[in-house]
Amino acid sequence: MRATGQSPALRARVAGTGGLIYAASMKGVWLEDQALDYRDDLPDPEPQAGEALIRVHLAGICGTDLQLLNGYYPFAGIPGHEFVGEVVAAPDDETWQGRRVAGEINVSCGVCLQCRAGRTTHCENRSVLGIRNRHGTFAQYLTLPLSNLHVVPDGVPDEAAVFTEPVAAALQILEQVPLRPTDSVLVIGAGRLGQLVAQVLNTGGTNLTVVARYPRQRALLETLGIAVLGEDQLPLRSQDVVVDATGSRTGLVTARGAVRPRGTIVLKSTYKGETAVDWSEFVVDELTVIGSRCGPFGPALRLLEHKKIDPTVLIEERCYVTEASRAFEAAARKGALKVLFDFR
Amino acid sequence: MRATGQSPALRARVAGTGGLIYAASMKGVWLEDQALDYRDDLPDPEPQAGEALIRVHLAGICGTDLQLLNGYYPFAGIPGHEFVGEVVAAPDDETWQGRRVAGEINVSCGVCLQCRAGRTTHCENRSVLGIRNRHGTFAQYLTLPLSNLHVVPDGVPDEAAVFTEPVAAALQILEQVPLRPTDSVLVIGAGRLGQLVAQVLNTGGTNLTVVARYPRQRALLETLGIAVLGEDQLPLRSQDVVVDATGSRTGLVTARGAVRPRGTIVLKSTYKGETAVDWSEFVVDELTVIGSRCGPFGPALRLLEHKKIDPTVLIEERCYVTEASRAFEAAARKGALKVLFDFR
Repeated sequence: MRATGQSPALRARVAGTGGLIYAASMKGVWLEDQALDYRDDLPDPEPQAGEALIRVHLAGICGTDLQLLNGYYPFAGIPGHEFVGEVVAAPDDETWQGRRVAGEINVSCGVCLQCRAGRTTHCENRSVLGIRNRHGTFAQYLTLPLSNLHVVPDGVPDEAAVFTEPVAAALQILEQVPLRPTDSVLVIGAGRLGQLVAQVLNTGGTNLTVVARYPRQRALLETLGIAVLGEDQLPLRSQDVVVDATGSRTGLVTARGAVRPRGTIVLKSTYKGETAVDWSEFVVDELTVIGSRCGPFGPALRLLEHKKIDPTVLIEERCYVTEASRAFEAAARKGALKVLFDFR
Repeated sequence: MRATGQSPALRARVAGTGGLIYAASMKGVWLEDQALDYRDDLPDPEPQAGEALIRVHLAGICGTDLQLLNGYYPFAGIPGHEFVGEVVAAPDDETWQGRRVAGEINVSCGVCLQCRAGRTTHCENRSVLGIRNRHGTFAQYLTLPLSNLHVVPDGVPDEAAVFTEPVAAALQILEQVPLRPTDSVLVIGAGRLGQLVAQVLNTGGTNLTVVARYPRQRALLETLGIAVLGEDQLPLRSQDVVVDATGSRTGLVTARGAVRPRGTIVLKSTYKGETAVDWSEFVVDELTVIGSRCGPFGPALRLLEHKKIDPTVLIEERCYVTEASRAFEAAARKGALKVLFDFR
């Protein structure tokens, strides 16, 4: 890490963390005006009060990163929000130093109406790792508040821990829509997120079916004993709960056709633009539509520690950050699963 | 009632019901190809097995009736689904004879998947009074299964009992979204249904506000001590629950602006056509949207009996059925409240 821009006190502390060596100029990915580049002169992250400096081990490319590149949200900076890493400096609480961590991505103010109501992931003043007003994980180092960090249990390898954030996002479905053992649940989409949603929902006795487009997606699910349908075999007006994990506007329309009257559609897809629907149909069938975003890290790490799910089967490519463009291209291929940046 | 088309057995039973005199040719409203007419030669209703023949006292014009006239659903027949009336024949259970009744509007098959799951108002084979495959209430007589009927308590006058169906529809909100005493609830729209929703939600200690467009709507609510806002005074991202009772496509957009993150939007409006929204906003804010239709008659009649609500303040015009066109015009005026057909 470059000395410029660091306080002498912090420099002294960082120097005392056990001899970890930082890049003189940080290497990472820079996103701006819907274009991305590899850079080796990125600004050094500097932990603010209550924050940790974290060396990234692995970082995963998510559908949202691809959407940012497509202009879904006007972010300029270092993208990426999935990671596992190691705390190399924690000026306010040195007990964190050296710990391997995953990190919640919403950094909240603690004082706004949403925070005081306990909805910290909806903080009106939040920054979001690699998405809004905060540099992300596609670089050698990042900073996050200590209150966002979760220690990764020893038995969970980096290759699994890097999935903590999307596994938590999958678990958020169960935070919002408690499933009964008799419920029929259809997951539409078997990409990066759909696979994790399927694995998470398959931990109980749920009557689960997944709509998958690509043979490799199907094979992964079938290995886990999960029922799979093609897009031409959709059930009609029969599913208690339908999860749209397509990442596209087709998901809602498909979900609406498959859900039963008074059923629930869970939306996990974000994308740019509007989609028209006949709302009267939702009234007549008394459907519930619920948007679902970030989820709880504690249960996600428990699932990983107890090996109830295995996200590592989704890893299809590891890239150096110098190959940023190739990595994003690989992640954007139809049917692509998880592409990781390896900084170790 | 004309004898033609009636079985001799039924004719004999009807004749034995106490000397009630039917019209030789039934008077009522006929809707077809988005046009309506008064007619005095309508087909006589004939109760099927398990049904009652009911003489209509009062029938109310609802927004859905106006939407049918606008082509919302291709119904041809006698429209209308709000009524209070008197059983004049109940061949299968004569104890019903002479009883004053309100009636649930969905006639279900009892054997389909929805019925067996207890969702009888969502029966896949249902007919719906005055809306789908069943003549409605804007005529001197109608038929409904005995299982759809609810006896109106003696203390509830016809003028209140005719509101049982829309009061039940308002109560359906509470069946679907249990409100906490601390919840802030915004009702958008203060027409026929919005007024009833406001009265029903105001029975508890709910922190209730109603957005009303017209002075008369506002005055009615203020008389009840309900907080009222104009359309230019909408709260922003703050309401726990927002009910769209506008009956139009503007309602959802307004609701989306007023609801807090993780809040709930209840849709009561049906109208023809599609409306586009940015679904990603619903995902990011983790909103719940829930369609709400028909509700429970028992609680509605209890509210009326115990005078917890007073729908009669909404009556602004009573018409004879011979004035069908004038009645529909009155009901379609901007800000119009309840127009009744009086058959007594």
